[in-house]
Amino acid sequence: MKTYLDCYPCFLRQALSAARRAQATVEQQRQILLDTMDLLQALSPQATPPVMAERIHRMVRARTNTPDPYRQSKQDATAQALGLLPELRDRVRTASDPLETAVRIAIAGNIIDDGAAEQYDLQATLARVLEQPFAIDGLPQLRQALSTVDAVLYLADNAGETVFDRVLIETIDRPVTYAVKAGPIINDATLEDALAAGLDAVSTLIDTGSDAPGTLLDRCSPAFRAHFAQAPLIIAKGQANYETLSDIRAPVFFLLQAKCRIIADDLGVPVAGVVLKAPADMRRWNSDLGVEKQP
Amino acid sequence: MKTYLDCYPCFLRQALSAARRAQATVEQQRQILLDTMDLLQALSPQATPPVMAERIHRMVRARTNTPDPYRQSKQDATAQALGLLPELRDRVRTASDPLETAVRIAIAGNIIDDGAAEQYDLQATLARVLEQPFAIDGLPQLRQALSTVDAVLYLADNAGETVFDRVLIETIDRPVTYAVKAGPIINDATLEDALAAGLDAVSTLIDTGSDAPGTLLDRCSPAFRAHFAQAPLIIAKGQANYETLSDIRAPVFFLLQAKCRIIADDLGVPVAGVVLKAPADMRRWNSDLGVEKQP
Repeated sequence: MKTYLDCYPCFLRQALSAARRAQATVEQQRQILLDTMDLLQALSPQATPPVMAERIHRMVRARTNTPDPYRQSKQDATAQALGLLPELRDRVRTASDPLETAVRIAIAGNIIDDGAAEQYDLQATLARVLEQPFAIDGLPQLRQALSTVDAVLYLADNAGETVFDRVLIETIDRPVTYAVKAGPIINDATLEDALAAGLDAVSTLIDTGSDAPGTLLDRCSPAFRAHFAQAPLIIAKGQANYETLSDIRAPVFFLLQAKCRIIADDLGVPVAGVVLKAPADMRRWNSDLGVEKQP
Repeated sequence: MKTYLDCYPCFLRQALSAARRAQATVEQQRQILLDTMDLLQALSPQATPPVMAERIHRMVRARTNTPDPYRQSKQDATAQALGLLPELRDRVRTASDPLETAVRIAIAGNIIDDGAAEQYDLQATLARVLEQPFAIDGLPQLRQALSTVDAVLYLADNAGETVFDRVLIETIDRPVTYAVKAGPIINDATLEDALAAGLDAVSTLIDTGSDAPGTLLDRCSPAFRAHFAQAPLIIAKGQANYETLSDIRAPVFFLLQAKCRIIADDLGVPVAGVVLKAPADMRRWNSDLGVEKQP
């Protein structure tokens, strides 16, 4: 039985944080905690964290009548990241291995996560991830794969992190389709957030058709699923994409930092590990697409 | 309305930790989380953290049929602290102000807390607390009060921390009655733990009559309440004693480290603040004794 018991306290914390971001009163905050516990108690033991998160954050948005509690945080993160963009491009331009540097930058941006933690230090993380050995190093496979494909599907994670993705997209010199969430969930990037970060200048923007974290294929739109089924190479950013796609057989490269122990243990890496996980092989099994474990 | 919403996620984490210490199966762990949520949902919004903790840990002990999930942790902490005892005594012996050094040592020992956090670094904490300015400095009042009283009631907190208390008790040169919990709760010291730390050599050991964290006077035994009512000076260790006694008008000096934001905010100090909080005055209002806010 795959369980995520450590996620229960984490989701209570996250729900309270979302409620406060939505300016909920103390009594509303309390009611949101009670509702969150109802939702957690009603879940199947097999429900994955993205499924839990989707339900809990929908409830918080409804209870607080706030469509996007993380909007200010996302705008702030994008603005901060855009301020770093010239420096990030310089680092790639002067790098001995521009692809590796751009990959590390994209992974460094994954620290911007209002779900996993309440605080982060972007500059310190950038410095660390640029130097730290990969906990899982799929860079040779990614380099090889990029040389053979004529298009890339890039699954976005969080607002602000988008700017770091932009640097990688500018580096790989392949046509990129950049997929964001169809609606607000935590600080995940939506179309509005991707546009604010200038991703339209370097990629074709689409959305997944879903407002769940990660990529729950069976909840995504037919249009997105067609993109996913046809993409010869997929770059998936962040923990939630790993949680939702790691069992799908498709040419997916996971780029992330292991920010919590649950994900780190699943990957077999230390917390704060820098991960570029290549697929076992580049073939895909189309019969797998859209097959999710239902909660 | 005084609420402790941030404690809800913390108690889920704590219940899970206790369940695992008690060797609970994964399914038992899940059931304990569900039960914890039932208990949290049934609580009054005004219930204090020690009241929540008492109920949750009783449930964990019953569900796992384990009378003391923290027993091994307490024994390890006591053994580690006893290893430091010669060094701690040396520090007091060579100090320019032995009372201040002994007080700081007692506060440093308060880092040993399996409720507030899963990990701590005892040596690093000792070095820090010996140097760090007090966030609240009631040392002059404590020094003055000690010079005028002929006995001290010392309310213990956690196993292992007991050894650090012993150093302070050896320093103050007054007859001390040392009060521990009547039964296991988290890693709070019981009679067994106090004996293992050698507190019987420097004090008269009693218990509070209660297995709740802190000192919920209305759940304590008549014998303990008599001690409390008559004590001319009370030293109360740790967060839970502050949570349960801060509104009681009695000559209580609180010695603690602010280990979580909720307590730190209440005290008006930063997290990790070193606190020696003196009573507003040394008079007591006997009518207050035993009066608790009921959940």
